[in-house]
Amino acid sequence: MAQRIDCDVAIIGAGSAGLTAWRAVHRAGLKALLIEGGPHGTMCARVGCMPSKLLIAAAEAAAGVHHAQKFGIRLDGSVHVDGAAVMQRVRSERDRFVGFVVADVQAMAPEDRLDASVQFLRDGVLQADDGRTVHAGRIILATGSRPVIPDIYRALGDLAIVNDDVFDWQDLPRSVLVVGSGVIGVELGLALARLGVRVRVLNRSGSFAQLTDPAVRAVAIELLGPELNLVQHARVTSVRRVAGEAEVSWVTQDGAARSERFERVLLSAGRQPALASLQLQRTGMPLDERGLPRFDPATLQVEGQPVFLAGDVTGRHAIQHEASDDGRLAGRNAAAWPDVQALPRRAPMAVVFSNPEIMQVGGGLAAQDPEAIVIGEVDWTRQGRSRVMGRNQGVLRVYMRRADSRFMGAEMVGPDAEHVAHLLAWALQMALTVPQMLALPFYHPTIEEGIRTALRDANRQAR
Amino acid sequence: MAQRIDCDVAIIGAGSAGLTAWRAVHRAGLKALLIEGGPHGTMCARVGCMPSKLLIAAAEAAAGVHHAQKFGIRLDGSVHVDGAAVMQRVRSERDRFVGFVVADVQAMAPEDRLDASVQFLRDGVLQADDGRTVHAGRIILATGSRPVIPDIYRALGDLAIVNDDVFDWQDLPRSVLVVGSGVIGVELGLALARLGVRVRVLNRSGSFAQLTDPAVRAVAIELLGPELNLVQHARVTSVRRVAGEAEVSWVTQDGAARSERFERVLLSAGRQPALASLQLQRTGMPLDERGLPRFDPATLQVEGQPVFLAGDVTGRHAIQHEASDDGRLAGRNAAAWPDVQALPRRAPMAVVFSNPEIMQVGGGLAAQDPEAIVIGEVDWTRQGRSRVMGRNQGVLRVYMRRADSRFMGAEMVGPDAEHVAHLLAWALQMALTVPQMLALPFYHPTIEEGIRTALRDANRQAR
Repeated sequence: MAQRIDCDVAIIGAGSAGLTAWRAVHRAGLKALLIEGGPHGTMCARVGCMPSKLLIAAAEAAAGVHHAQKFGIRLDGSVHVDGAAVMQRVRSERDRFVGFVVADVQAMAPEDRLDASVQFLRDGVLQADDGRTVHAGRIILATGSRPVIPDIYRALGDLAIVNDDVFDWQDLPRSVLVVGSGVIGVELGLALARLGVRVRVLNRSGSFAQLTDPAVRAVAIELLGPELNLVQHARVTSVRRVAGEAEVSWVTQDGAARSERFERVLLSAGRQPALASLQLQRTGMPLDERGLPRFDPATLQVEGQPVFLAGDVTGRHAIQHEASDDGRLAGRNAAAWPDVQALPRRAPMAVVFSNPEIMQVGGGLAAQDPEAIVIGEVDWTRQGRSRVMGRNQGVLRVYMRRADSRFMGAEMVGPDAEHVAHLLAWALQMALTVPQMLALPFYHPTIEEGIRTALRDANRQAR
Repeated sequence: MAQRIDCDVAIIGAGSAGLTAWRAVHRAGLKALLIEGGPHGTMCARVGCMPSKLLIAAAEAAAGVHHAQKFGIRLDGSVHVDGAAVMQRVRSERDRFVGFVVADVQAMAPEDRLDASVQFLRDGVLQADDGRTVHAGRIILATGSRPVIPDIYRALGDLAIVNDDVFDWQDLPRSVLVVGSGVIGVELGLALARLGVRVRVLNRSGSFAQLTDPAVRAVAIELLGPELNLVQHARVTSVRRVAGEAEVSWVTQDGAARSERFERVLLSAGRQPALASLQLQRTGMPLDERGLPRFDPATLQVEGQPVFLAGDVTGRHAIQHEASDDGRLAGRNAAAWPDVQALPRRAPMAVVFSNPEIMQVGGGLAAQDPEAIVIGEVDWTRQGRSRVMGRNQGVLRVYMRRADSRFMGAEMVGPDAEHVAHLLAWALQMALTVPQMLALPFYHPTIEEGIRTALRDANRQAR
């Protein structure tokens, strides 16, 4: 085994960003080395998008059984969640998705990959934990992110878990405290609650599912808060392991103190770039106060270095198609370095797969100049098709620039938000105005007619 | 009561097209008279889009209960469809939708409407069945369509029904023969089957749900045919009323004869423009061999006459938003006559609310020049999110013009086809190329990623 590996571009991390980056460099005709120190299969397939949607599918199936009564479908008997069977399907389908990724990696030429953890020795040189060194003309950091584990929960040992752990469960626990009401906390908290797990969600602030429009957030909290047993502005004061359970105490804004026990505590209070083990301080990279290399978001290049970031390690929202786009851009720029370019990005969109679903397009309200926009709204409780399906809950708010009627973004909680998000993100990327959108077809009776209602509302106000 | 009513524009028919036409004429400042001889409330709200989707929602709820087992949700007991409760919700929600339309009509000034059946006396003059005459400078025909009732079924009396009758049921029948596998036959047949009614669908030809792509049609028939007990190329040879039931006999293409009994026979073998009672032959309108006035589809004007058609009476596909667009156009042109214009139309789309759903964009394959296109495809059985939800069935085929890579249309049977149809119809109307569409966001993991697979497939073939 050669002690030294030379390559044009070393890609650290074989997730969605790293794999795409590797292909881009490879396609450019350069020698690309894909380095992975952990399990293959991407965060998305192993512990992210796919297994969470599998758990959610089971939860929605359970909710659908109860919902059916509204339509005249009667159950003579009871509904029972077979936790072992639920988790069996989640794991086996998850393994199938992971299998596709692993097969792709295994099909690579052996000299194109290195399964080892690495750290920097100096600029352009990596030390692998199998003793080998990698010398690379350019490096792509695609190491992803890790959950933040607040120190106070360390006392819980294996009772404190992260999302990764959920998908290896053999059965459902009876109770789970979810710490954090971001995307992961809301998705998993709601799925577990609908599968009969006693769930409590605590959040330090008033944030919810990354919504930035207070009106949409308020409706989302009103709709999902009760099932989540959501407590906002909660400060955890003590965490103890008692009789094999986690006892967690907190105080709320009004000073009320409370203590509850749970079988597990799911920590989903944020994620941070996974860079700690790389020893970046041994390189010439300029680091910010968090230890993250300073980089140009447009080109993904680290300032002044032949090093590029791609995917969740950038610290931006963890969104799979953006990670792949990052990989393509970083790979292209690493291959062409020093001729780096900024490529056009897709219109921003984000979806939370709760029920009702939550979505944001164009960075939501936070990305708008409040003085420059009018806000159009539809109340889903009154929308025709939503009501037909008994799913008439939520609100959509669309943001239109007053000066030229251009559609700028939206936030929503309500039915089929993932589909609404696509239509609106496509319209945003095409730079459509609201009048142009109103000239497009809206079929009857569909959820999309609710979009039209909101767009008309914006249009009317602008007149 | 005045015996003679004078108006600038008489609109015959207060459905989706007529109501919109009335508003357009009224907005233009002319005296518009809305004439309706039947019940108010639009076909869509009374007997079309809305009540059918209500029945389908109940059917899907019932199907969802069984589907839940796949995810590990167990039913200890049995599922029972409470037919009376199902129909109660259908009727009461239907009445609510109808109520909105009726309230709008009732809010009109009394002199703006005439609740009477009318027939032409001569050009510009209508005789109402209450004895009054209407003298109108221009006339809009928005009388809608009626189901075709083949003579052979007349012997059944009240056992032979049309879609209108279904939504007044107090309970579900035990068995229904559905004649015709167009949109209405497939939607209602499938809903009834999923609600436990013994259903048989007979169709004279090999057509199915207006699909024109043989590959998509074959998959749709494979997926939905068994639940519908579909018999294609069936020639009905005799229809008798026996012991309060309908006994229907038919022969199939291979010469096999069969006879079955049903509680009801639902006739959905096509619709025809509702013009018979108008006595159009008394006017100067040029009529075709079916008695339909010859008109310009672009302006909706009857050749050489100050008369306009709008909505289903045109004989085109009965699609609600197109009927409204017709009304707006006919109203605008009637008001501006003789300065009539062709207005831009929306990209064509059609949805069948079966499950899996069926859709067509851009007129489907039938509207394409087969030599000029390449066809991209996605097999939903292998698509990620579809599989996660256990809804991985069907196929999407997209049509791309070889010369300039422009997206031209699509047909599909599969998950969430109504949402896929909107995205693709919007892309069609924006005249996007497939490469432009591939630069738009596709969130992970969603059904929309399947669209991307099909687009990439088309792109690859064109290279």
